[in-house]
Amino acid sequence: MNRPFNFSAGPAALPEDVLREAAAEMLDWHGSGMSVMEMSHRGREFISIYEQAEADIRELLAVPAAFRILFMQGGGLAENAIVPLNLSRGGRADFIVTGSWSAKSQKEAARYCDARVAASNGAATHTRIPDAGSWQLGQESAYVHLCSNETIDGVEFATLPDLRALGCEAPLVIDFSSEMASRPVDWSRVGLAFGGAQKNIGPAGLTMVFVRDDLLDRALPICPSAFSYRTVADHQSMYNTPPTYAIYVAGLVFKWLKHQTEGDKTGIAAMAARSTAKSGLLYDYIDGSGFYANRVDKGCRSRMNVPFFLNDETHNDAFLAGAKARGLLQLKGHKSVGGMRASLYNAMPLAGVQALVDYMREFAARHG
Amino acid sequence: MNRPFNFSAGPAALPEDVLREAAAEMLDWHGSGMSVMEMSHRGREFISIYEQAEADIRELLAVPAAFRILFMQGGGLAENAIVPLNLSRGGRADFIVTGSWSAKSQKEAARYCDARVAASNGAATHTRIPDAGSWQLGQESAYVHLCSNETIDGVEFATLPDLRALGCEAPLVIDFSSEMASRPVDWSRVGLAFGGAQKNIGPAGLTMVFVRDDLLDRALPICPSAFSYRTVADHQSMYNTPPTYAIYVAGLVFKWLKHQTEGDKTGIAAMAARSTAKSGLLYDYIDGSGFYANRVDKGCRSRMNVPFFLNDETHNDAFLAGAKARGLLQLKGHKSVGGMRASLYNAMPLAGVQALVDYMREFAARHG
Repeated sequence: MNRPFNFSAGPAALPEDVLREAAAEMLDWHGSGMSVMEMSHRGREFISIYEQAEADIRELLAVPAAFRILFMQGGGLAENAIVPLNLSRGGRADFIVTGSWSAKSQKEAARYCDARVAASNGAATHTRIPDAGSWQLGQESAYVHLCSNETIDGVEFATLPDLRALGCEAPLVIDFSSEMASRPVDWSRVGLAFGGAQKNIGPAGLTMVFVRDDLLDRALPICPSAFSYRTVADHQSMYNTPPTYAIYVAGLVFKWLKHQTEGDKTGIAAMAARSTAKSGLLYDYIDGSGFYANRVDKGCRSRMNVPFFLNDETHNDAFLAGAKARGLLQLKGHKSVGGMRASLYNAMPLAGVQALVDYMREFAARHG
Repeated sequence: MNRPFNFSAGPAALPEDVLREAAAEMLDWHGSGMSVMEMSHRGREFISIYEQAEADIRELLAVPAAFRILFMQGGGLAENAIVPLNLSRGGRADFIVTGSWSAKSQKEAARYCDARVAASNGAATHTRIPDAGSWQLGQESAYVHLCSNETIDGVEFATLPDLRALGCEAPLVIDFSSEMASRPVDWSRVGLAFGGAQKNIGPAGLTMVFVRDDLLDRALPICPSAFSYRTVADHQSMYNTPPTYAIYVAGLVFKWLKHQTEGDKTGIAAMAARSTAKSGLLYDYIDGSGFYANRVDKGCRSRMNVPFFLNDETHNDAFLAGAKARGLLQLKGHKSVGGMRASLYNAMPLAGVQALVDYMREFAARHG
């Protein structure tokens, strides 16, 4: 079977090998006589799946021992409340607003704390990242929040800021939903990282939280038990029944990631190199095309989500129809931005991006 | 392949037909070229899956138009906070404590409101349901909570109470996680029903909430947006990315349920008849065995979860090992109760219960 290339922003394409393995094991996981969906989360079969998944993502992302890895539910929008419920202590928190997601995070956090916009593009269209020197960070801030990759706007931090170098001792919280596992993380700069699985690592319904030990005990009394980091950590993510099948599929993705190579690189380093190559191919073509445009500053263009526009938008419908006919799926841009968006998560091969560029070139030649 | 019988209390057995269909469609759903896991939740393919699932469960459970059906995340333990966040208005709520789950619900609700124990067995071991006439319900109560089937203790309400007949106008909230879709619901007695999917209807990570329209607008300001019933309802359960694959599998189970028959009954009525037959077979054997015992009052024995004890518990390990060798899985009781527990959800056929009874009889003859 020749599968189409799926550019969905999430839920998104998964590696074909992972889907084949999941299908093959659906009725009987490793001779257990059970589907993974049918296993008690407290049984030794599922515990072994869970422990392997946790060990693999810890190894892949080089997560230090001082961090707990939590498998939660609710996605990024739930974490927008869960983070301030756990970390803010009802005090001040600072937000770097670089797109739709960080803006939503700040707004939701304001239910629980003094959620300040410490920096913002101040524009409806997010195409840049405010210079770190201009951020208005509070000395007393409980944490500083940023979205390391804005899925909708296509704006990504090339590197994470060093808050201490900016004179701020607060822990940095990153929403890395749409770039998790696409490059190494400098954990020395991070207190907490969270992300929905449905972009780079698995099915929707699983949220990964990486939280430093010293941040576990700051929850407000109104924090629901099921979303208290301390409670979840103390129960190995099994205080409530975890999304077992989603964890299993994420575990298969982690195993797949460990076996990926790119030149002399493996695992996440290979994904980083591949992501740069894939997005570079697309941006280079767009910039030189004269037919398409990406409006994001070159220094903060996302390797994961590439929004682009046809200079003549009357061709939009024809572009999408032609793409679908060529097996290039889910390219329509987010409604708040318009135009097109190609999401290039880990499961998207370079060949998929090449096929997209080939199609874009042909379409431009026909309609330019 | 001869699959074993899986008596897990949840996550639990799923119909083999459902697992086969999910496996067959894993790489390509209906010619879309995508796994359901890979679909945007806003695309027409997934929307069609979602709408069919909602329509089917509405039809199966005869859910009135005045109720919204929400597909959420976090399971029963999250709902223990989400319900009072949405319904209590910070006032009084009454809890009927008949087992471990209702006890947990009351304890969690106390974070948000004046959560009263209106009735309780008052004992560590829950084997009965306090007479409704003795419940201390408040006139000003925001809602009355009960767990219609206690998964751990094996205690089930044979019928739901009529609160108005008890002089109480508050809406009844039922946690029906472990009996959802096993019998019809008298919606005239219910304001809100919730349940995790991982017992009777699907994989872990999906929570179903059925809520009457007039209860949507009572949320406290501290209720996270992602868990506000109004917000979730207004966004057709897609305010945050829903657990798409779990919804898909639940939809397959709903389709399977619609085709089940038992005598002249179909759908949920067939499930109710089959549940009574299955649990009756097991209880009758236990009661007459002289070797095994169930300690729950006959008027409130669960049709879904049958805890039982060997009169001589030194045989417990041998019983479990022998069961496993016969393909009778996950029979160990919950750690807080001990002994054994056989969960007889919709996907468990009568043949599975017969196989269990046959084994129990042989084991008793050998060790009695």
